Amino acid sequence: MVPVTFVLFGATGDLAKRKIYPALYNLFVDGKLPEAFSLIGLGRREWTDEFFQSNVEQSLRQFSRREIQDHGKMESFVRKFRYTALEIGRTDDYKKLLQVIEERESELQLPPNRLFYLSVGPEYFTTIASNIAESGLGSADGWKRLVIEKPFGHDLQSARDLNEQLSKSFAEDEIYRIDHYLGKPMVQNLEVLEQANPIIQALWSNRYIANVQITASETVGVEERAGYYDHVGAVRDMFQNHMLQMLMMLAIHLPHNSSPEDVRKHKKQVMEALVPLSKSDVSASVIRGQYTSGSMGGNPVKGYRSEPGIAAASMNDTYIAAKLQVDDFFWRGVPFYIRTGKRLKEKSTRIVVEFKEALNQPSTAALGGAPNLLLIDINPNEGIMLQLNTKENGELKPVQIQLHESSKDIPEAYENLIFDALTGNPTFFAHWDEVELAWSWVQPILDAFRDNSVPLHSYEAGSNGPAEADALLAADGYHWWFDSKEEQQTNGKEDKYAYQIGH
Amino acid sequence: MVPVTFVLFGATGDLAKRKIYPALYNLFVDGKLPEAFSLIGLGRREWTDEFFQSNVEQSLRQFSRREIQDHGKMESFVRKFRYTALEIGRTDDYKKLLQVIEERESELQLPPNRLFYLSVGPEYFTTIASNIAESGLGSADGWKRLVIEKPFGHDLQSARDLNEQLSKSFAEDEIYRIDHYLGKPMVQNLEVLEQANPIIQALWSNRYIANVQITASETVGVEERAGYYDHVGAVRDMFQNHMLQMLMMLAIHLPHNSSPEDVRKHKKQVMEALVPLSKSDVSASVIRGQYTSGSMGGNPVKGYRSEPGIAAASMNDTYIAAKLQVDDFFWRGVPFYIRTGKRLKEKSTRIVVEFKEALNQPSTAALGGAPNLLLIDINPNEGIMLQLNTKENGELKPVQIQLHESSKDIPEAYENLIFDALTGNPTFFAHWDEVELAWSWVQPILDAFRDNSVPLHSYEAGSNGPAEADALLAADGYHWWFDSKEEQQTNGKEDKYAYQIGH
Repeated sequence: MVPVTFVLFGATGDLAKRKIYPALYNLFVDGKLPEAFSLIGLGRREWTDEFFQSNVEQSLRQFSRREIQDHGKMESFVRKFRYTALEIGRTDDYKKLLQVIEERESELQLPPNRLFYLSVGPEYFTTIASNIAESGLGSADGWKRLVIEKPFGHDLQSARDLNEQLSKSFAEDEIYRIDHYLGKPMVQNLEVLEQANPIIQALWSNRYIANVQITASETVGVEERAGYYDHVGAVRDMFQNHMLQMLMMLAIHLPHNSSPEDVRKHKKQVMEALVPLSKSDVSASVIRGQYTSGSMGGNPVKGYRSEPGIAAASMNDTYIAAKLQVDDFFWRGVPFYIRTGKRLKEKSTRIVVEFKEALNQPSTAALGGAPNLLLIDINPNEGIMLQLNTKENGELKPVQIQLHESSKDIPEAYENLIFDALTGNPTFFAHWDEVELAWSWVQPILDAFRDNSVPLHSYEAGSNGPAEADALLAADGYHWWFDSKEEQQTNGKEDKYAYQIGH
Repeated sequence: MVPVTFVLFGATGDLAKRKIYPALYNLFVDGKLPEAFSLIGLGRREWTDEFFQSNVEQSLRQFSRREIQDHGKMESFVRKFRYTALEIGRTDDYKKLLQVIEERESELQLPPNRLFYLSVGPEYFTTIASNIAESGLGSADGWKRLVIEKPFGHDLQSARDLNEQLSKSFAEDEIYRIDHYLGKPMVQNLEVLEQANPIIQALWSNRYIANVQITASETVGVEERAGYYDHVGAVRDMFQNHMLQMLMMLAIHLPHNSSPEDVRKHKKQVMEALVPLSKSDVSASVIRGQYTSGSMGGNPVKGYRSEPGIAAASMNDTYIAAKLQVDDFFWRGVPFYIRTGKRLKEKSTRIVVEFKEALNQPSTAALGGAPNLLLIDINPNEGIMLQLNTKENGELKPVQIQLHESSKDIPEAYENLIFDALTGNPTFFAHWDEVELAWSWVQPILDAFRDNSVPLHSYEAGSNGPAEADALLAADGYHWWFDSKEEQQTNGKEDKYAYQIGH
């Protein structure tokens, strides 16, 4: 693997502690970090290298998916870490940083390959990027990459502005926009599922698929992010990025041996085929929701407007459901139903593909069966389930055949993504084209929400969301799968709730 | 349910004890026997009703899949049983039997619906049938049915002779030929699997299926049946009936809402589409095998020719594998590989459907994957498994998604079949047309075996059969699935061996 310096902005922050250090450590244990590796942590505070290293060590003990068993190994990992204080707006600090990087590079005989990871608020993105460029941190003798976290803008215009700014300092192929849903093993599997399985390939179109349902439900409320979340809502926080990325990954049809460029091209094609909404369409195909007080796991919980830091008259969306149409050869006529929200009954990210009934036959329901379903469980469990009808005691009955991988051995999203960024594989990052098209598609919803031209439906905390989201599917003769207790039980979903409560 | 008298020839025999009484009892417990039910047991020996009833009771305690918990219930079941001694060839005894039946009928106010169950050797079939007819046991005021066990003939001519004889006394729609494989839940499911699942329907043809493998392997040797088995061999004992019935059930394409007549018609069409073998073709597509000494579960076992009652120079087949072609619209070009034998490594009846690789793509094997497979486990476990490729740690890897039903609650084959015979549903019985076509197809094999015009390959007891059976598939670029230890392990087949040893 190519030697590299990992320059981490926001090294004292929460994301670094919970996700980035554990991910790097597990890559190290798996032999997936380059032998010659230097990490420079940056933060406003004045920390010594030793204090930084002991902080990293602590974060590993607390958050690594693997327990730290080999202390020597952990030590040799942490010794790669250095810390430098940096004021984001101060150009001198970048010169100082360049010295530190170069010292380590000559010490470890590293080429000047530098990955800049921005684990900081979006308001700092452009300042950092231009300071990197101007201070000469991007050397001509090596490569430079910019990894940035969400959010990428808060609407179409701001995203375009941000991208324009960044592109002054970094080329598109140097920018790695993290959407951590793209790092999740089962989301990465979506591409493989269709491409590497002839029988899925055969079924993967409007000829056999009745509808697709993408759900990302959370049980948590706004937590400490009230001030931020109240200006963002479910549509920006989840829908524009994660949900549309999952849609792209499911709807994509790739040629074999596809390159990262193919993936980008075909994801873009999916977005281009999304039938656009006008602002006046929004009320017909988008459901805006906000939770009221209710109960979660037997405990009473507050309504959104009573959460600390939320305005009593907030019209912010904590829930969004939408019906989308991908108007291409494969998907024409297949509705994609997407929903995400907070304070819902169950923590679950999943995709359900409902297959059509056979033509010219009585419905399987009438015969005691159910539609064929393919369930892709993304979080918190990973798994694939197929629902078929069989005969039991002379009667037709749906049964579910399942794969449940143990989730212990599976790399976390951040491991996958950081590894890809280090090795220069952009497949599972959000390309600007996708981001821009996603904001374009979402913009009329943002406008309609802002102008309150669509109703804000309330739903009880701990429920499955507003009744209007059920009506959205019922109008087409469908329902959301695995909302009801019976469907959850047969699907072994009982476990999940327990899991999530303890998490 | 229609009241009926169940007249059982061979009431003191082993099959009655192990299968028929337990099946009737479990039907009774499930409320699937008619309220008014009379069973008349027949045998050569002079038994009293009480002795017969206590024998039945004993058999239930020993062989019922459900434990006898409610003694009162068991008593009320056994009280329906009467016994009459009968000499099969003596016509007077049938007159006496008629009196006994009629007495019970008037006692219980039963209509003269009579089901004659022949749990006796095939040499008695015609005598019993004609004596039933001549003695007036088949009354004009009710219905009569004849249920007969295998074997139905020992070659094409003898089967035709037998059928001609039987048809003098019973019409085809009064004859229920038991093939107990047709009673097995997962075999009955084959029809439903395709018919009630649009996604299976979509895949169920030569467009997507590469080959079909049907295996029925036994671990036992000839046991006490040496004298019989040495004249029959695997081809008559298993292949002509059970194996070809499974092929029909898998290859059948039924219209929706199919009647028993549809099932018969379409099974017949499958048999008619089977490309016939000439005697000279046999050596190219049929493998004859006989086991030599070896070891089973660590214990040494004898070779076939050393078994008690087997001639030292016996050329009998204890194993047969064959490649068949169903030349119809759906299956043209899809080889069906069928094999069955004794003293094989594992007890397992299963069907594997191997799907084709995608066109114009590197093989999934080259990418680290494997073909898509559908495994239908028939015995001793019931289950369905689908093998798909997913990505794990960046690499393509086949994973198996499984349904394993608990086998406790599932009715046994004989329960299903006896219930169907009582209610007059012929769907899962072998129609004469099928039997005749199966014998026709098999006849050249019988001739070739008799004339030793094909080699007799030996295989070690405890192995997977002769190497030539592997070569049969290798010539087409395939292999028998789940023979190797690795494939068995991933499929959880380890359990099965344990199960079967204890059985």
